[in-house]
Amino acid sequence: MRLTDAKIDHVGIVVHDLDDALATYRDALGFRLLERLSAPDHGVQIAFLDAGSGTIELLSPTDCDSGTARFLARRGEGAHHICFAVPDIRRALEELHSQGLRLIDETPRRGVHGLIAFVHPQAAHGVMIELLQKDGAHRRE
Amino acid sequence: MRLTDAKIDHVGIVVHDLDDALATYRDALGFRLLERLSAPDHGVQIAFLDAGSGTIELLSPTDCDSGTARFLARRGEGAHHICFAVPDIRRALEELHSQGLRLIDETPRRGVHGLIAFVHPQAAHGVMIELLQKDGAHRRE
Repeated sequence: MRLTDAKIDHVGIVVHDLDDALATYRDALGFRLLERLSAPDHGVQIAFLDAGSGTIELLSPTDCDSGTARFLARRGEGAHHICFAVPDIRRALEELHSQGLRLIDETPRRGVHGLIAFVHPQAAHGVMIELLQKDGAHRRE
Repeated sequence: MRLTDAKIDHVGIVVHDLDDALATYRDALGFRLLERLSAPDHGVQIAFLDAGSGTIELLSPTDCDSGTARFLARRGEGAHHICFAVPDIRRALEELHSQGLRLIDETPRRGVHGLIAFVHPQAAHGVMIELLQKDGAHRRE
């Protein structure tokens, strides 16, 4: 299957200040805020906005040592990752691994909406791909 | 309405070489190729791949003076823009303009799948937002 069954779930955008970014994305652009949360384990504050067939995730680092903070220091604000929802993240990772693609996470870890894993940007032409198996989306054996 | 009714249509990714990128995105990652075309007016070769609820657009510059070529020289390969489909692009642009957002295109121009316009990345925290009003019945509908 690899990512043949994958669907764009969200695009992650790293920003300096979440309130400032919400003033743009929610108030000026008009996207509807779905959820705002703090994820101290990941060193970020997050807001999800409705974008019809998927969501926009605004990420603002709260921990200077987080990957998000390093990205912001190196590249500035902007698109950070594309997340694809997959029905079975372990199987997807096995298949990508067998294709020789460099993974950041060889095994899934817990994200805010389910199990997640990242493919290394060097494996995908500069794009950080996130895989997400949403909570409740269990595979049928 | 602004972008309240917008849906993620595709994410555009700039790459050096389209065949090389297809070897990754189609062959290794497993996304299905929908369409490959040359857009000499835009100075790019393009491939669209199916990503469930939207598409991935791989863009490779053929013209060194194109915006895509300048992006590639400055930032390297990676995510270039997020495209949102809107029902009425002129109305969306008027509303974004009235919000004081800096636009690259004040009026729509022709893209490969309909009328398009870009919002300036400085207006959206480093993200280049494309608006698209699709021609008639699009291939995915």
